[in-house]
Amino acid sequence: MEPVKTIDEMKKIARRVHGEGKTLGLVPTMGFLHEGHLSLIRRAVALCDCTAISVFVNPKQFVSGEDLDKYPADFERDRDMARDAGVDFFFFPGVRDMYPEGFQTEVHLPGMSKRMCGLSRPTHFQGVATVVLKLFNIVRPDVAVFGQKDAQQSVVIKRMVRDLDLDVKIDIMPIVREPDGLAMSSRNTYLSSEERASALCLYRSLEKARAAVEQGQRFTENILDIISHVLAEEQKVQTEYIVICDAGTLEELDALHGRVLIALAARVGKTRLIDNVIITAGNDK
Amino acid sequence: MEPVKTIDEMKKIARRVHGEGKTLGLVPTMGFLHEGHLSLIRRAVALCDCTAISVFVNPKQFVSGEDLDKYPADFERDRDMARDAGVDFFFFPGVRDMYPEGFQTEVHLPGMSKRMCGLSRPTHFQGVATVVLKLFNIVRPDVAVFGQKDAQQSVVIKRMVRDLDLDVKIDIMPIVREPDGLAMSSRNTYLSSEERASALCLYRSLEKARAAVEQGQRFTENILDIISHVLAEEQKVQTEYIVICDAGTLEELDALHGRVLIALAARVGKTRLIDNVIITAGNDK
Repeated sequence: MEPVKTIDEMKKIARRVHGEGKTLGLVPTMGFLHEGHLSLIRRAVALCDCTAISVFVNPKQFVSGEDLDKYPADFERDRDMARDAGVDFFFFPGVRDMYPEGFQTEVHLPGMSKRMCGLSRPTHFQGVATVVLKLFNIVRPDVAVFGQKDAQQSVVIKRMVRDLDLDVKIDIMPIVREPDGLAMSSRNTYLSSEERASALCLYRSLEKARAAVEQGQRFTENILDIISHVLAEEQKVQTEYIVICDAGTLEELDALHGRVLIALAARVGKTRLIDNVIITAGNDK
Repeated sequence: MEPVKTIDEMKKIARRVHGEGKTLGLVPTMGFLHEGHLSLIRRAVALCDCTAISVFVNPKQFVSGEDLDKYPADFERDRDMARDAGVDFFFFPGVRDMYPEGFQTEVHLPGMSKRMCGLSRPTHFQGVATVVLKLFNIVRPDVAVFGQKDAQQSVVIKRMVRDLDLDVKIDIMPIVREPDGLAMSSRNTYLSSEERASALCLYRSLEKARAAVEQGQRFTENILDIISHVLAEEQKVQTEYIVICDAGTLEELDALHGRVLIALAARVGKTRLIDNVIITAGNDK
C-alpha cells in the first residue's frame, strides 16, 4: 500500500493507473475506520483493479459547535486496517492542500440538503458534496463506494453525479451493525456504556417499523407513531427527526409504496447518531 | 465537422479522442458567433489536436426579466462559421438534456459572484459555473478558451478550476473590438444606430483611464471620476458599475498596483453592455 499525502501525487498516481487501462475504486472516509468502512473497502477491492481510500476529516461538513476538533482519529490503525483490507493507495491530504487560501467554491443541492440531517446541520451536505467532488476530480475513480448508513448523503451524491455528468459509478453498501444491532459509527466511541445501551432503541424502533410494514401497515403516521414510541422509552435519547420518504428522491410520503427509506437522527446524551432502513412496500401486503 | 446533439454522444467522442492520445480544446458559447468567438476558436484549434465548441443558451445564467427568450440565435450561421474556423465537434445540447427533471446541483463562488455583474445579476455566476463545470465533465477538455470580455467570468472559472482540482487549462483571449472600439458582443445586435454611437463611450472612458494610468495616475477615486465623466456625457447611457480591482482576485483597490482590471457595465437604452481593460500599474510612473 502506497501512502499518498498530496493532491498532485494522488492525481499522478490516478492518471498512471488509468493510463495502464486499470480500473480504480475510491472509498472516501473521515478515518477512524471500523467494520462499516472495511465492507466498503472490500467492495471496492472486489470491483476494481486498484483501490484508493481517502482519509480526510473535512472541516466543511461540520457545522459550528460540532465535534470537528475532537473527531476520533488513529492514523496508524487506519493505515494498517486499510492495508490489510487490500487498499493500494492511502490518500490523506492536509486541510491546507484541500482548501488553500482563497478557496471558495461550494456545491449546493438545495432541494435535498435542507431536510432531515440538513435541519440541524444546514451546511453539512454542501461540505460533503464539495469534498466528494474534489476527491472525484483528484482520483477520477471508476467506482466510489459509500455506506447506506449515511442515507441522505448517498442520495445527494448520486444526484450530484447525475447533475454534473460525472462518470463515476456510485455503489452503496448496506449498514454494518454491531451484534446487538447498533449501526457502526466512528462516533459510537463517544458513548458511555449506559448511553450505548440506550442507543439500541434506534435500531429496535426501525425493526419494529419494518415488522409493521411487513404486516401490511402503509400509513406514514402510524409508522412514525411506532418509532417515536420506542424512542420515547429511553430517557437519554432525544429524537431529532424521523422521516419516511422515497429512497431515491427523499420526497416525504403520506403512504408507503415502492422503495421506502425510514431514517432517523437522535441525540444519545451529547452524541448525535443516525440510523435507517430501506423497505420495499408493495401495493398490498 | 461533426454535429453532436446529446451529452452521451459528446462524452463518447471526447473519450475516444483522449483514448487516441489527442488533446481536445473546448470553446463554450451561447451561439450567435462573432469575431470574438472566432478568436477563441482559432486559439483552441492552434493549441489542441481537436476542438469542440458548445452552443447552449444556458437558462441558468439569466436572471428573471432578462433576455433569455429573445437572445439572438442563428444556428446555420453558427455551424458554418464554426466549421470554417476549424472546429471538429459542434456540441449543441438541449435544455432538457442538460437540466433533466430533478436537476438541482448548483456551483457557488460566493466571494467573487456578488460584486460587479453579480449586483444586478445575483444568480448569474452560479449559472455560469454550473454549466461550465458540466461542459468540462462532458468534454474533458485539455484547454478551454474564454474571452477577456467577460472578465469576472474568467476569474470565477479559473478559481473554480483550482478549487475543484480540475485538470483543464483555462486560456483567456483579449477582447475583440469593432474598428471603432466597441467590444464585440452578441447583444450589440439589440442596439439602434443612435445607441450604437452612444455605446462607444464605454471604450472611450476605459482608454481615457488607461492614458491617465500611463501618465502616472494611481488613485482609484481619480480614475473612477475620469470614467464616470465620460459615461455621463451620453444621455442614453446609464452606468451600472465601474470597478477597479486586482485582475486575479477581483478585490477592489484604493490605489492601482500590479495587474489591475478596470471593468464597467452600463445600459445603453435597454441593452446591458460590459467592457474592461487590464493595465499593469508599476509602483512609479
